Amino acid sequence: MAAIGAMPEIGGFRQKSRRSFVTLILTVLTSSQSILIVWSKGAGKYEYSVTTANFLVEALKCALSLVALLRIWRKDGVTDDNRLSTTWDEVKVYPIPAALYLYYIFAYVDAPGYQILKNLNIISTGILYQIILKRKLTEIQWAAFILLCAGCTTAQLNPSSDHVLQAPLQGWVMAIVMALLSGFAGVYTEAIIKKRPSRNINVQNFWLYVFGMIFNAFAIMTQDFDAVMNDGFFHGYSLITVLMILNHALSGIAVSMVMKYADNIVKVYSTSVAMLLTAVVSVFLFGFHLSLAFFLGSTVVSVAIYLHSTSKARR
Amino acid sequence: MAAIGAMPEIGGFRQKSRRSFVTLILTVLTSSQSILIVWSKGAGKYEYSVTTANFLVEALKCALSLVALLRIWRKDGVTDDNRLSTTWDEVKVYPIPAALYLYYIFAYVDAPGYQILKNLNIISTGILYQIILKRKLTEIQWAAFILLCAGCTTAQLNPSSDHVLQAPLQGWVMAIVMALLSGFAGVYTEAIIKKRPSRNINVQNFWLYVFGMIFNAFAIMTQDFDAVMNDGFFHGYSLITVLMILNHALSGIAVSMVMKYADNIVKVYSTSVAMLLTAVVSVFLFGFHLSLAFFLGSTVVSVAIYLHSTSKARR
Repeated sequence: MAAIGAMPEIGGFRQKSRRSFVTLILTVLTSSQSILIVWSKGAGKYEYSVTTANFLVEALKCALSLVALLRIWRKDGVTDDNRLSTTWDEVKVYPIPAALYLYYIFAYVDAPGYQILKNLNIISTGILYQIILKRKLTEIQWAAFILLCAGCTTAQLNPSSDHVLQAPLQGWVMAIVMALLSGFAGVYTEAIIKKRPSRNINVQNFWLYVFGMIFNAFAIMTQDFDAVMNDGFFHGYSLITVLMILNHALSGIAVSMVMKYADNIVKVYSTSVAMLLTAVVSVFLFGFHLSLAFFLGSTVVSVAIYLHSTSKARR
Repeated sequence: MAAIGAMPEIGGFRQKSRRSFVTLILTVLTSSQSILIVWSKGAGKYEYSVTTANFLVEALKCALSLVALLRIWRKDGVTDDNRLSTTWDEVKVYPIPAALYLYYIFAYVDAPGYQILKNLNIISTGILYQIILKRKLTEIQWAAFILLCAGCTTAQLNPSSDHVLQAPLQGWVMAIVMALLSGFAGVYTEAIIKKRPSRNINVQNFWLYVFGMIFNAFAIMTQDFDAVMNDGFFHGYSLITVLMILNHALSGIAVSMVMKYADNIVKVYSTSVAMLLTAVVSVFLFGFHLSLAFFLGSTVVSVAIYLHSTSKARR
């Protein structure tokens, strides 16, 4: 029965390759998402209600989770781990990430300088990851995480970045609150998904997205009720809007997969690499120029990834 | 005889604190050197011949080495290791660093963008350190070194830095040649000084500086012969010129000490920290503003120092 001894090895390899696969998919989706945003900005201001688009994203994710579940039920039958019915005890914490994301959208500030401060969520994710998930990052992993934050910020430096240093205290507080909200939402989602490892990810996603739909319906009513009533739900939608909704839905599912099979740390690395990838692709697509700061930032991010991976290997 | 067992411990501590001391002195001197340069630039263009100042720096270092030797001879008597007389076999390689520095001065380009490329000498020092001194840097130390280079460059970013990306191939070749020259000179000096560890550092310095004087006399004759003949050797000297000569002489000796008791890697870290220190001090002295890029670069340099020091501790 030597095969049994070999099993964990194979399981480890499978798990590792699944983790790599979902991470790769997330990176590509996040990157193409940014490219769609740049493209849509070229086409002029947002004409549609962002809240309706967010609602559709949640609805689409819900539908995709159901489709996946139907296939699984047909193949494996309904089990305790993949049945859709749930208990209040299981889902009572599920609204928390959705509520946090909603707060995040309300708090959202799009001033040019604040783009830079968004990178603070790398640090907040690391801190909350340790506190909430009680998983320790090694000193080298922390060094790598600080480098990741500094590298991403460096890569995004532009002549107006220094304004951020003159930002009022209120702006800093807002940025830190936003970083904490987004970090907390991410880490809390991982806590929910990892709480019952054997539970099918599609069921977990389904219920998470149901609450996402509810909270986004609330956002439509408070923010865009008049616009939707007067101009219709789909007013201002274009091909690019549809593509962005599709992309957001798929990346949302990819994020969930990364939370299930990897963790928030991997997610942060993945989105950071996506940011660099976007810039490189934009050179070819939109004739963007890469700055020296971008090269320096990318170098620092690459070293951060290297340090994180060697540190993991030693564990 | 338990004391013998304890000896290396005490020796190790002494050596370590001496290494820390000379490194600290070098950092402070390098930093005040940059501050003097900024100050003197405020006072207008260089009025004096730089070659004569360089000559005086070498002469002063020579004199200071002799004074130190006189004190040592009076205290310990003349030994094989501290006598001034030497053999051709010992000093035949001594002219090499001086000659390299001279080439470096001739090749020197002071275009605004090239300031950025100067940081390449961090990488060239690391490479030549491995090749010439045959001492291996660990992977983490290399990662730290790349971060040091990226961090220093980031800290110096300014709106005109991107010009460097448009520099012609010739400019890049020149920058790389300069980085190699300066790296080679530094590493070769270490090789010379470390070749005979028991040899008194002041004797080694004395002979190195004698060749420095000879090469700088040659530079005066080829570059500033007319100016010196017409206006005199000390034409255009001011208080600040004298302070700069004093400072260069003392930092030159500090560099030698670092080479003897530490190495080129420590020297590179020391000058990098000095660069950051200079910027911070300039805020108070000259009302400079620190950019966001400076903060990011300093963060990366700090992580580099941390990584280098933990990596050393594990050796």
